Amino acid sequence: MAALVKPRLVAVEEARRFMVECLVKSHTPLSHAQQQADLLVEADYRGHFSHGMNRLEMYINDLHKNACNGAAVPTILNETPATAWVDGNNGLGAVVGNFCMDLAIKKAKEVGVGWVCAKRSNHYGIAGHYTLHAMKQGCIGMSMTNTSPLASPTRSKDAALGTNPISVGAPAENGDGFVLDMATTAVAVGKIEIQRRKGEPVPHGWAQDPEGHPTTDANVAFDTGCLMPLGGTELTSGYKGYGLAAMVEVFCGIMAGSNYSTKVRKWTHAGADTEADLGQCFVAINPACFAPGFEGRMSDLNSILRNMPRTDESKPVLVAGDPERIHIKKVDEEGGLGYHENQIKTCTQLSERLGVKPIAFV
Amino acid sequence: MAALVKPRLVAVEEARRFMVECLVKSHTPLSHAQQQADLLVEADYRGHFSHGMNRLEMYINDLHKNACNGAAVPTILNETPATAWVDGNNGLGAVVGNFCMDLAIKKAKEVGVGWVCAKRSNHYGIAGHYTLHAMKQGCIGMSMTNTSPLASPTRSKDAALGTNPISVGAPAENGDGFVLDMATTAVAVGKIEIQRRKGEPVPHGWAQDPEGHPTTDANVAFDTGCLMPLGGTELTSGYKGYGLAAMVEVFCGIMAGSNYSTKVRKWTHAGADTEADLGQCFVAINPACFAPGFEGRMSDLNSILRNMPRTDESKPVLVAGDPERIHIKKVDEEGGLGYHENQIKTCTQLSERLGVKPIAFV
Repeated sequence: MAALVKPRLVAVEEARRFMVECLVKSHTPLSHAQQQADLLVEADYRGHFSHGMNRLEMYINDLHKNACNGAAVPTILNETPATAWVDGNNGLGAVVGNFCMDLAIKKAKEVGVGWVCAKRSNHYGIAGHYTLHAMKQGCIGMSMTNTSPLASPTRSKDAALGTNPISVGAPAENGDGFVLDMATTAVAVGKIEIQRRKGEPVPHGWAQDPEGHPTTDANVAFDTGCLMPLGGTELTSGYKGYGLAAMVEVFCGIMAGSNYSTKVRKWTHAGADTEADLGQCFVAINPACFAPGFEGRMSDLNSILRNMPRTDESKPVLVAGDPERIHIKKVDEEGGLGYHENQIKTCTQLSERLGVKPIAFV
Repeated sequence: MAALVKPRLVAVEEARRFMVECLVKSHTPLSHAQQQADLLVEADYRGHFSHGMNRLEMYINDLHKNACNGAAVPTILNETPATAWVDGNNGLGAVVGNFCMDLAIKKAKEVGVGWVCAKRSNHYGIAGHYTLHAMKQGCIGMSMTNTSPLASPTRSKDAALGTNPISVGAPAENGDGFVLDMATTAVAVGKIEIQRRKGEPVPHGWAQDPEGHPTTDANVAFDTGCLMPLGGTELTSGYKGYGLAAMVEVFCGIMAGSNYSTKVRKWTHAGADTEADLGQCFVAINPACFAPGFEGRMSDLNSILRNMPRTDESKPVLVAGDPERIHIKKVDEEGGLGYHENQIKTCTQLSERLGVKPIAFV
């Protein structure tokens, strides 16, 4: 039983060291490798293991196939005081994303808002990475990306949009905050994979069968690979989740002039043969331009929500970002990131393939 | 059976005339009355009857109780090239909203983006009204408002957030476009009311019972008045809908310094005794600042989505705004808006109470 295998603990700094070295051995300059590793290690630290070290091999494969250019530096194609249109030049997602969010923050500090769109980007990891960066600068951050088609529009038999995540982050007092980071599908593919491994059904509203009807069979759901939008079927307002996914596509692919919808390539573990040309959107807003005392009200809202009477006494009401805060505390207490045995195997293979010092355990 | 009563047809211009006159008889200057009537008649024209003439009496009652000031003109409290913080001065929702979106569009044309937040506003009708206005100016529009607490955070027994709608509109070629306008709850209260009248259950995931558990009993759902967020229960990712509702609150009440969350008053047909002090957010983005050819790509995306293979041949895949386009066509073909008998009764009462010429039928 996979669930019973105790995860191997790796110190956060050691996980970062290993990923930086793997990327450097894959045609990537140190500063870019560090940015990409920071992105991946942050995902693991926050408990989103699907988007952390788990993705390293895919990025490495893309770099070795020249589907992504680890050395590329983004360029600005058009700029106004509050906006910028950026060409990611097929660089690493973290490099493009950091460049864009830094630019958005600069503009937010100058004129109140910065709205930056990038074309020719690559998978940029957890959307929350960029909003967290804006929050550290006292800004409200927003970030979205299109992704490979995996989600079905309501009434459609096939996928036409990605999991198209949206993140919004806002700072509260004493380091607290609001950090929404969500796919616009009901769930990500990883959750279906977990049900399948456990041999359990998936809830109604997660995924479609090949005929376009909702399925509860985890194997069918996994093989079809067609996720339902947030809300599930039309009866439970799945068209709203579909509308949100399309909204993300409008702000990303349509606005940036990148690939969009069914034109986005598939992305596999083997790496891709073509450039992804993803579209992404980064927004920073300076709350000081609006009502004074933003962070105090943000803390008060968090407090109201966390103290709502519970349906089940054992389950506290959370605010967006709380599950990640709980995970970060756990990692700190345990002294490391708990990686699954399969992840460690992949790392061992990578270390041999790239000539990188194997990962050390706590 | 209410559903069998044929609706009475009223010409769009006549519905508008009636609403303008009722508002003028309620301490509201003509230009403000026209703006509010345009908002309400547009809701009916687009098929959102809950947000159109249906709301007239509530607005009238608020005006007569001085809970809302029909003559108030919004003022700018703070301004940067890309932002404005506005005091609605407790004016009509349409007046505050139009003022803010006009300002956002002006800024979008000057610096690429305009981001405007208003405090001390009132219910502003359909969120799509303001995004449609931005679209007519060639901009992408975004609009959000907080509302009276009616929705339960995931795991909470009680309501702490409103239906907190979000609208995003983007222009395509030849008058086509993308017009998302959705509550962040699974459904609005009106849909539960309809099931109750029909004596039918509500789907799982729409509403909670007094203990905080999902209910399918339409009477219980209606009496409890506690909607579930988009996504339904925690298992089907209702926490994402809850996160979106909280995001709207961050962009509205928290940013504008208005009432928020449980601090927002209830709103009833009898009218309110206190000022609503709602927070609202209006954003305009000039797509010309990004990749050239936005409207062409927007049309292409709409075309891809509308032509996806159907799960059910009789049900075409729609894009956000299509149900409204279908309704507008129906109204134009029939030559008028089809109002329910109860709505007409309310209008007759209003015409007698205010000394306004009764509504005429087609």
